[in-house]
Amino acid sequence: MNKGGDASDRAANETEARLSRASVGRLSLYLRRLEILLREGTTKVSSGTLGEALGVTDAQVRKDLAYLGHLGHPGVGYAAPELIDAIRRALGVDREWLAALAGVGNLGRALLRYRGFADRGFRIVALFDADPAKIGQRVEGLEVHSPDAMAELLPALGVELGVLTTPAESAQAVADAMALAGVRGLLTFAPGVLRRPAGVNVVSVDLTVQLEQLAFLVQHGGE
Amino acid sequence: MNKGGDASDRAANETEARLSRASVGRLSLYLRRLEILLREGTTKVSSGTLGEALGVTDAQVRKDLAYLGHLGHPGVGYAAPELIDAIRRALGVDREWLAALAGVGNLGRALLRYRGFADRGFRIVALFDADPAKIGQRVEGLEVHSPDAMAELLPALGVELGVLTTPAESAQAVADAMALAGVRGLLTFAPGVLRRPAGVNVVSVDLTVQLEQLAFLVQHGGE
Repeated sequence: MNKGGDASDRAANETEARLSRASVGRLSLYLRRLEILLREGTTKVSSGTLGEALGVTDAQVRKDLAYLGHLGHPGVGYAAPELIDAIRRALGVDREWLAALAGVGNLGRALLRYRGFADRGFRIVALFDADPAKIGQRVEGLEVHSPDAMAELLPALGVELGVLTTPAESAQAVADAMALAGVRGLLTFAPGVLRRPAGVNVVSVDLTVQLEQLAFLVQHGGE
Repeated sequence: MNKGGDASDRAANETEARLSRASVGRLSLYLRRLEILLREGTTKVSSGTLGEALGVTDAQVRKDLAYLGHLGHPGVGYAAPELIDAIRRALGVDREWLAALAGVGNLGRALLRYRGFADRGFRIVALFDADPAKIGQRVEGLEVHSPDAMAELLPALGVELGVLTTPAESAQAVADAMALAGVRGLLTFAPGVLRRPAGVNVVSVDLTVQLEQLAFLVQHGGE
């Protein structure tokens, strides 16, 4: 996927400065793996075990986790609960994030029902759609508002993140309106390239990229 | 996202062997960028221009593109049409891929309407859902079949790829049934970890990972 924004050059301290987007992505995956292992009763985990599950080397795992501080115990591995807490803190998912969703179509509705978001502390608290037929409707317990209401509603609700599931042609205007209303991060599913509003981080999800990766693997005999 | 499969150890030749998943992902993004530039009338592109758009270094761009053969012209850059063709061939998107989708909920419907798939040669030709109320319905012009019909239908249609938008609890059974029916690659949106059927590549999309990455960027003052 296309990833706008760049944490590395302006991060608050040196530790964060060296965490690449790829490392951040792996932290999320280690976290999922650790939670499964812990549920299964495993409390000590080696870098080898974590790496194997994700197809990366021990060395890469240790490098990624070194950013979190001195957590590993030589010859013993990592304490799963301690590592889980450290990763959650580093990712910023030890707190709740309020989000607004713009574009209440099929994808928007699917995301609203996606329990993974709420499980991770991402709570969608406001819905917007430009379609007059949808404005005023309730979807998953939330009223759909006109985009005109963003400037007032988003600051009032304390929304920090925006999720864009609008058509490509309206994505930029919605992104800009959200930025003006104080949103600091945008997750966009809209096809095409978004110009990043000043002071806002953008993560773009292009589902075709994933399918192309799969096609490459199948075509080249990966297995 | 979690990425099962590993092209690197069994790729058909050395060139492919050295293309990491990250490089493959970047090829997709270069392709999108090049297509936009070409539409805008730009026919010669430098590694710097391509890298800037994606936030990677010139050197990384040249390294990624070197896998495609000798395409760059020193002091001139790359010929956009030539590079587009080479990337499409490398990714395997210079041909059509037939896909089946299992799980006709909101996300499944959103993907069916997602024009990006068809634009890239990914054509969904069969739908499956375990819900008796949905079986026999038509969605986006396609009939919804029972998963029991996979063994017969998928080989008959020549389906090579599967898209899983089922609930987590049925994903594994559907993946296994698709593999038995000859599917060679699976794109899964189901939460949780999928055991990879033998001979099948799996690319998992975990949308929460993207949101966590965004939270990290916002929290750490990226931008």
